[in-house]
Amino acid sequence: MSVRYGLLTLLRDHGPQSRARLADRLQVPRQRLLAELDRLVASGTVVEAGHPTSRGRRRSPCVQINPCLRFAAVDLDTRSVGVEITDGRLRVVASHQEHCDIRTGPVKVLGRVTQILHAMRAEGHFARLDAIGIGLPGPVSFREGVPVCPPIMPGWDRYPVRDVLADEHGCPVAVDNDVNVMTLGERHSGVARTVDDLIFVKIGSGIGCGVQIDGRVYRGAAGCAGDIGHIQVDADGPVCSCGNVGCLEAAFSQEALTRHAESAAGGDGSPLLAERLAANGSLTARDVADAAAAGDAVCIGLVRDGGRRVGQVLAGLVSFMNPSMIVIGGDVADLGHILLAELRSVVYQRSVPLATGDLPIVLSELRGRAGVVGAAVLASELAYGGAA
Amino acid sequence: MSVRYGLLTLLRDHGPQSRARLADRLQVPRQRLLAELDRLVASGTVVEAGHPTSRGRRRSPCVQINPCLRFAAVDLDTRSVGVEITDGRLRVVASHQEHCDIRTGPVKVLGRVTQILHAMRAEGHFARLDAIGIGLPGPVSFREGVPVCPPIMPGWDRYPVRDVLADEHGCPVAVDNDVNVMTLGERHSGVARTVDDLIFVKIGSGIGCGVQIDGRVYRGAAGCAGDIGHIQVDADGPVCSCGNVGCLEAAFSQEALTRHAESAAGGDGSPLLAERLAANGSLTARDVADAAAAGDAVCIGLVRDGGRRVGQVLAGLVSFMNPSMIVIGGDVADLGHILLAELRSVVYQRSVPLATGDLPIVLSELRGRAGVVGAAVLASELAYGGAA
Repeated sequence: MSVRYGLLTLLRDHGPQSRARLADRLQVPRQRLLAELDRLVASGTVVEAGHPTSRGRRRSPCVQINPCLRFAAVDLDTRSVGVEITDGRLRVVASHQEHCDIRTGPVKVLGRVTQILHAMRAEGHFARLDAIGIGLPGPVSFREGVPVCPPIMPGWDRYPVRDVLADEHGCPVAVDNDVNVMTLGERHSGVARTVDDLIFVKIGSGIGCGVQIDGRVYRGAAGCAGDIGHIQVDADGPVCSCGNVGCLEAAFSQEALTRHAESAAGGDGSPLLAERLAANGSLTARDVADAAAAGDAVCIGLVRDGGRRVGQVLAGLVSFMNPSMIVIGGDVADLGHILLAELRSVVYQRSVPLATGDLPIVLSELRGRAGVVGAAVLASELAYGGAA
Repeated sequence: MSVRYGLLTLLRDHGPQSRARLADRLQVPRQRLLAELDRLVASGTVVEAGHPTSRGRRRSPCVQINPCLRFAAVDLDTRSVGVEITDGRLRVVASHQEHCDIRTGPVKVLGRVTQILHAMRAEGHFARLDAIGIGLPGPVSFREGVPVCPPIMPGWDRYPVRDVLADEHGCPVAVDNDVNVMTLGERHSGVARTVDDLIFVKIGSGIGCGVQIDGRVYRGAAGCAGDIGHIQVDADGPVCSCGNVGCLEAAFSQEALTRHAESAAGGDGSPLLAERLAANGSLTARDVADAAAAGDAVCIGLVRDGGRRVGQVLAGLVSFMNPSMIVIGGDVADLGHILLAELRSVVYQRSVPLATGDLPIVLSELRGRAGVVGAAVLASELAYGGAA
């Protein structure tokens, strides 16, 4: 870890501090620290923050991240886009969320992102951006800043997302897949604060996971680590969109769940689902969650079955990786504690006991905000010189 | 990575070198490098190695690891113990292998290890040891240097292996489980040289794997990462010794394989197995391997079925971790290319294509020596200040 990165992340996460305190916390020779701080002050990234007083005594002057620094965090989902502007400490300055269909292609979607950012600038939320972080709902080559064969994003394959946004906004841009970004968010300011070896599972339109090892995103040799949606859970299961049989995603995901729910609504078992289907013409994971919470046996069964399938895959991953925590996020995480209970029971029963002894399996704390919070962390890591 | 560790591993792996070349390779400021080298020379770890000549010109003097440095590498298996003495460059100075039943307990087994080491000293292979590395066939708390609930090692639970050997031999000792140690060996001087993200699968009396991430052993939160033997591969499979159903180890391991083979030898299908069983009273994985190589259909079927089961587990792990290489080692790896072919076919068919595009799945190059080579690497990492 460079001294520069250490300094900037301390100031990002803990606010203004004296040079003495920074030196204590970073444990680097005072001369090196002061030299690096001088460089950061000279470049305008860090500014003096005045003299704090303590019990009436004047203490050594504080420094802080320049309050004018601005990051843009962009969270692209298949059907929505969230944009937030933060300051250098990742405090939200402005935010915007709207419907957006990823299938309309990169030119249209990124064009809209740019319009939103221009509007935010016109409203005075920033003069210029210091970095942009963006999460995409598909595989991304982090090094190149492009999506790679994203299955549900027609037209996006190898589109130069990073370079297009960097040209347009004149600042560095980091692009990553949505799950890695959510993992960053949850670790920075969610339930996984201070957890170093982490699996974050997103259950939504698909299923994927983000992996953090030693506090850093682990991406794997080709950048596709965490792609667990197509692990087989049932050799006799349904054919998946990938062509294989019995994949986790085919057994349990937003799409699989609503399909099962719509089929159950046709029978006699679930008057609640039948009612919702009649009223809205289709069903969502939310409908299943509501019905399950209201005690609908069919829906409870659907959620349990899903939890069991996800648990089956996680049980193996826990034995293999022995993580410190598992976080469940994504839209289907709204299914909440019924899902969690089933999933936990499979993992605790099937994984190596040593690996589950101290293993919390918990729901995301940031929920729908994990992506946009993580995108801001991603932007700051890029600007501050860390390797996210 | 510390300068000290960088210097010593360069000298370990590439032999005597000039200060200029070391400075080039390590890319640290020349002053720091020279200061560290001076310290290493003063402590006797590094010595001058004379002036090399190049095209008749005298070049700057070389340094090398002190040729008197000695490491002991101990590879404990369930039924054998291997001990090697190496110099500081891990070149073998002496070696010894003998039968040894791990179930006779730590006092007896480690007592015998100590006798072997004393005999080697008496033969003049070393005056004193600089470090000992030892691999045990069960879960180990690396930090504490003790085995933790090892299933096939009665009497070993929390026995202070590290401290007992350190007291006896007056040198630092590192204890790890056999699979992590084999992984270290294979990465240092086997097929996985230069591979940073690696899974090494040991198929023997049990099944486990070693994981390297960024070139370092990944141990997990509780130190039990890689324990894949009890991942479920068949919900209707046999009951495993762990109490769960359909574990990988219950479906395929040395024990499961010989059990299947002995049962097949009773039928009409495999005259070759029947012959061996009649001759020896029991069968081994070697018998199955020989019969399969000779075209025995029953044995080929057994090996293929095993390869499919292991492949099933690895397919999921490949999607999850996206490693750069998978190495198959352990006694059952003698089943060789039939096993490998089946295993590869499942992984290549079932894993995410992006993760298998450049993924070699290969047999261990060091084979039976992976453990003892890795134990020497472990000892050197301890002595040179790396975190293995």
